[in-house]
Amino acid sequence: MHRRWIVEEHTDRARRQSRATLSEVESKAILSRYGIPVVEEAVVETEEQAAAAARKIGYPAVLKGLGAALGHKTERGLVRVSLRSEEEVRQAFRDIRQAADKDWEACVVQPHIAGHREFVAGIVRDAQFGACVMFGLGGVLAEALSDVSFRIAPVDRFSARAMLEEIRAAKLLRPFRGEAAVDADRLTDVLTGLSRLALDEPEIAEVDINPLIVLPDGRIKAVDALIVLGNRKPVSRPPVDAPRIRRALDAMANAQSVAVVGATSTVRGGYLGIFGCMRAFGYEGRLYPVNPKADSIDGIRCYPNLGSLPEKVDLVILAVPAQAVPAALGDCIASGNVNVHIFTAGFRESAEEEGEKLQREIEAIAREGGLHVVGPNCMGWYVPSRKMLTWNAAPAPAGPVSMISQSGGNAQEFTHHAAKTHRLYFNKVISYGNALTLDSPDYLDYLAGDETTSLVVMYLEGVKDGRRLLSVTQEAARRKPVIIMKGGLSEAGARAASSHTGALAGSRRIWEAFFRQTGAVRVDSLEEMADVAAAFHYLKRTPGRRVGVLSVGGGQAVAVADACAQAGMDLPAFSPATVKKIRAFIPPAGNMIRNPIDSYLAFMRTEYVGKIFDILAHSGEVDNVVVSLPLDWLYREAGQENFIEVIARYLAGEGRGKLCGLPLVVAWRQYQDAEEFRRMRAVLEDILLTAGVPVYEGLNRAVRALARLERYSAFVKAGQAASG
Amino acid sequence: MHRRWIVEEHTDRARRQSRATLSEVESKAILSRYGIPVVEEAVVETEEQAAAAARKIGYPAVLKGLGAALGHKTERGLVRVSLRSEEEVRQAFRDIRQAADKDWEACVVQPHIAGHREFVAGIVRDAQFGACVMFGLGGVLAEALSDVSFRIAPVDRFSARAMLEEIRAAKLLRPFRGEAAVDADRLTDVLTGLSRLALDEPEIAEVDINPLIVLPDGRIKAVDALIVLGNRKPVSRPPVDAPRIRRALDAMANAQSVAVVGATSTVRGGYLGIFGCMRAFGYEGRLYPVNPKADSIDGIRCYPNLGSLPEKVDLVILAVPAQAVPAALGDCIASGNVNVHIFTAGFRESAEEEGEKLQREIEAIAREGGLHVVGPNCMGWYVPSRKMLTWNAAPAPAGPVSMISQSGGNAQEFTHHAAKTHRLYFNKVISYGNALTLDSPDYLDYLAGDETTSLVVMYLEGVKDGRRLLSVTQEAARRKPVIIMKGGLSEAGARAASSHTGALAGSRRIWEAFFRQTGAVRVDSLEEMADVAAAFHYLKRTPGRRVGVLSVGGGQAVAVADACAQAGMDLPAFSPATVKKIRAFIPPAGNMIRNPIDSYLAFMRTEYVGKIFDILAHSGEVDNVVVSLPLDWLYREAGQENFIEVIARYLAGEGRGKLCGLPLVVAWRQYQDAEEFRRMRAVLEDILLTAGVPVYEGLNRAVRALARLERYSAFVKAGQAASG
Repeated sequence: MHRRWIVEEHTDRARRQSRATLSEVESKAILSRYGIPVVEEAVVETEEQAAAAARKIGYPAVLKGLGAALGHKTERGLVRVSLRSEEEVRQAFRDIRQAADKDWEACVVQPHIAGHREFVAGIVRDAQFGACVMFGLGGVLAEALSDVSFRIAPVDRFSARAMLEEIRAAKLLRPFRGEAAVDADRLTDVLTGLSRLALDEPEIAEVDINPLIVLPDGRIKAVDALIVLGNRKPVSRPPVDAPRIRRALDAMANAQSVAVVGATSTVRGGYLGIFGCMRAFGYEGRLYPVNPKADSIDGIRCYPNLGSLPEKVDLVILAVPAQAVPAALGDCIASGNVNVHIFTAGFRESAEEEGEKLQREIEAIAREGGLHVVGPNCMGWYVPSRKMLTWNAAPAPAGPVSMISQSGGNAQEFTHHAAKTHRLYFNKVISYGNALTLDSPDYLDYLAGDETTSLVVMYLEGVKDGRRLLSVTQEAARRKPVIIMKGGLSEAGARAASSHTGALAGSRRIWEAFFRQTGAVRVDSLEEMADVAAAFHYLKRTPGRRVGVLSVGGGQAVAVADACAQAGMDLPAFSPATVKKIRAFIPPAGNMIRNPIDSYLAFMRTEYVGKIFDILAHSGEVDNVVVSLPLDWLYREAGQENFIEVIARYLAGEGRGKLCGLPLVVAWRQYQDAEEFRRMRAVLEDILLTAGVPVYEGLNRAVRALARLERYSAFVKAGQAASG
Repeated sequence: MHRRWIVEEHTDRARRQSRATLSEVESKAILSRYGIPVVEEAVVETEEQAAAAARKIGYPAVLKGLGAALGHKTERGLVRVSLRSEEEVRQAFRDIRQAADKDWEACVVQPHIAGHREFVAGIVRDAQFGACVMFGLGGVLAEALSDVSFRIAPVDRFSARAMLEEIRAAKLLRPFRGEAAVDADRLTDVLTGLSRLALDEPEIAEVDINPLIVLPDGRIKAVDALIVLGNRKPVSRPPVDAPRIRRALDAMANAQSVAVVGATSTVRGGYLGIFGCMRAFGYEGRLYPVNPKADSIDGIRCYPNLGSLPEKVDLVILAVPAQAVPAALGDCIASGNVNVHIFTAGFRESAEEEGEKLQREIEAIAREGGLHVVGPNCMGWYVPSRKMLTWNAAPAPAGPVSMISQSGGNAQEFTHHAAKTHRLYFNKVISYGNALTLDSPDYLDYLAGDETTSLVVMYLEGVKDGRRLLSVTQEAARRKPVIIMKGGLSEAGARAASSHTGALAGSRRIWEAFFRQTGAVRVDSLEEMADVAAAFHYLKRTPGRRVGVLSVGGGQAVAVADACAQAGMDLPAFSPATVKKIRAFIPPAGNMIRNPIDSYLAFMRTEYVGKIFDILAHSGEVDNVVVSLPLDWLYREAGQENFIEVIARYLAGEGRGKLCGLPLVVAWRQYQDAEEFRRMRAVLEDILLTAGVPVYEGLNRAVRALARLERYSAFVKAGQAASG
């Protein structure tokens, strides 16, 4: 209580004086209540008081001017350091008083704190994620260096420790130039204290502690600080009834009955229309066209409105012009149909005032009427097991991957690509566009608890309630892998995103913090998303980051090392014992036994591959095995038609068996365009994917996917260790 | 002369005293002779002298201990700053003398130099490139921050200025916290002075100026400095007779006669052997098999040795076992055949002592005999116009691209890939392996002057004479684009760090300097090499970095912006006037007129594409136009079989005409696997590439290639501006 009272006293005074900032002394008084070690100091108003305070605090001393209008203290000559005598203190007092002139209110006396290392810590508020805590390299160069790390509040001690290690200059935390290691516990306290302050006091917009000096003995002291007040009231958000939303989404995903409002048999361009797509994909539930202008559509009885349907449906899809959406939503409410997908575009994403206004209007209607709305401006649901689809064509088989996509185009492209390239099939795909009432956290919360979904991929541009996305993602990532591509991370991308779905795209650094805090797996393109999802789908987990590689060619060996280094995977040198074991059956000429192993011979006699696998599996020296196949060469060198097939079968069967459960990944490269080579590649992929061995075009993609799997595996392991 | 004499005096004294380092005072005395502004200072041996010097220099003063054995001065308490009176100076002298104890030799008195900004500058010697100059953020944090830039010496003023701007904290060069902008001219002098010193004095291994303090008025002062001596003698390299090498390479590339020593008709595995490959590819010159064990090979008369051939040949290819190579080289010399390609492996690349020894032996033979050797351990020449090829299959057409590749595998893969994907064909391809006598600079020097080569691509792992590679590449890049992939950048160079400069150097950074200094275009994979080569081949140059994009789909718009930001290209917003002109014929519903333009309609009515091109070309708002085609969608939406063909023909012909010469790049995406889609893609590529419009799978690759073209175009333009 006392702590809150202190804050209130200082902020109220500032408000009364129409100040947006608290003074250095006020700021430190508040911070010290949150466990932040601040420098000892005395506020003085006369030269006599200054001299007395300096005597008490000791020399060398520091004297600074105080005043509501005193910014840029250093530049204005209002900071005097290294004062070694009473006379120097008195002189400094007179100088400062004169320099500050009418802005002068008081001076503050502090001991002169010296240390080679200066950090900065603070609070900022992000438009999507709210309170965030910052840590970085400080001092006068802080802004120029911009060496900082962020976390979205609340920040626990574990996260705070990680923040310390993330800055480029993290080695300054260790013993440095004869000074002790930083007291990391106290530094951690600073960050968790800032987190508490940020959550306690929403009217504090920013906090800036700079410098936070490290003393030679490792202790830290906040020497200067600034608190900035904002007008921000806690954002009031509509309450979320998560169980009810989950039930609504489950009803839509498994809809036994669907009504398409605005159904038409007209095929414009090549698009079949929603009604036509649902029928073409073979939707097996009860499908009702609703259109007052038609008696029947494609031979099926048409209804004038939702009230005239023989039942309440599990899902209403609105495909009427934007101007007609408000009335159509009214019809949903009147008829008691609460689950709605608005396909129609022309709302906030148009970045024009009319669309903006229309979206506000339909949001009010939807919230008032208790509707669950997917969209507007989106493709809605693709659920292969229910044969639900709103676009022309998609893979028919169902699988364990679910997708949440703000972009309908990306949902269509990704599902095709993942199926074609990696044989990944989908459970539930939701394209949700402008997120009128339901947003990404709602969908993720639902899929996290959906037992038929083993893996979630998300394409996000922005989110309204970042804090809820954070907590839902944290919870979901504990239960299953969540792979996220955040579009608009570049500044230019963020501009395009805000005109696209009318969502705010957060700054790159806060999103980086989001990924660190949630355990969600970050990917940067749809292609990478598919590559990484395949690694998760086929391999589940990997025990570590050490990779052993079997390949062919010297240039390839260099490429393997570069690929591993870039992805953050280790390519350990094999021990002499391991090399000797392999050398026992592979002669030196033309075969390099290092990591990567570079040996044609091994492939020519596939049992050698098995022997190598067996040796690696028992060496304890690698956690994963990657095989890189140059298809053209192998095909030609072997001089036997089906040689690629022989290798593939061996790797998929006996070979993999020798690995005793170590993850196996196959990468291929192929540069000849002849039909026979394309055929061979299809054979290779068919055999390996059927056996559950992930296959990649090119080593870089394979290693990068493995690296993401490794990070997530480590995250899950750390979580298990922490919880028991 | 005087300058050299000063250096000699100090270094000789250090050598006599068995010191590897010069003292602070000695170091600064040398540096000041190279135009580096050093702090005023006086060496003093008594308290009286110290007091007198301080009086002369003024207060506050600094006192430091001097002594050959005095490292880590700060940690040992041998540096006292802010001394404000004679008494403080005297006390400091006594303290330092006591602290230094028997290591004490003298003290140095300096004025106390204060400034917020501290930089570091120095010299380091790289194993491949020799003397390099470094600049970076300095002070006690220099190593922890590692914010540095490098150039290989000699460094001219233009390069030095660029170094300043490359550090992350470059904004510190501008006015900062009330202090003036740094005197960039003097800072440039420091870097060019270091460059001269490094080249003048090979026995100086490292120089470290830290800190180089910026005074509030912008002047700079070297406050501390260290010179480290090395044992390095200037490396003696065999003299290079460039004209003779050029003639030899030209003779090989256009060989009218080739002898294959070790020719055999045996086909092992699927490889035809060198003799078989040359014949299979249709070599039209005189081809002689040499093998004492056969009378004829494949029906062709075989010779027992080179001396028995009816002529001296333009190229001898050795395909004998490694142990037989020395004798075969002897045969070359005896018979007067000086142009040799050693195909054989088993030398230095084996990383085993025997191979190492064998390579030293054949190098001695080759140099002694004046041989020009391509290899060993390589594929040698692929010259389509001469139908020369040493591997099984390669594209038959000849083109203007030449390749230098340290890896034979990469040469084979790249030529296939570039031909298949971008219809790039080759002029001369040289796979050169272990670089016995001829190394990458020799090949590049030859190709730079080869009029039938318009573009050079290189795959490099290492080079013996980095400085020669630097100068040859600088010269070549002025004449034609040189695109280089450097393999092995991730391998950490083992380096003894005796100073900051040493610790901050690394082979990656030196190679980055290499690219900046030469204008060579850096690529990071063979795929990117082909993409970039295609942009150069088809577009030649681009006037700037602004891109206008025509695409389809909202998610795509975000991806375009992210791709441009990542590649360093600009995606400018169009002016209201431009938007209005486009809006005159494209209605708002479903069409976003921003950058990227997102409009199905434009593609559905191709004349709209032309109108947009015309508007963009005359707007002055973009330098390049990228069209992103979603093949599946366009194919389906249009409802007409050959729609992709219609678009492609329009873009290749009338459409491009409207651009008034602005570069046009087409990117496609396609996710359906059906045969009809693959066919469409082939049609698209055929039409566009035939017309000279580069085509990429995916927008990222297109924009990245364009970005490399832009950098080179700017480099060429800057060179032209500088030279006239």
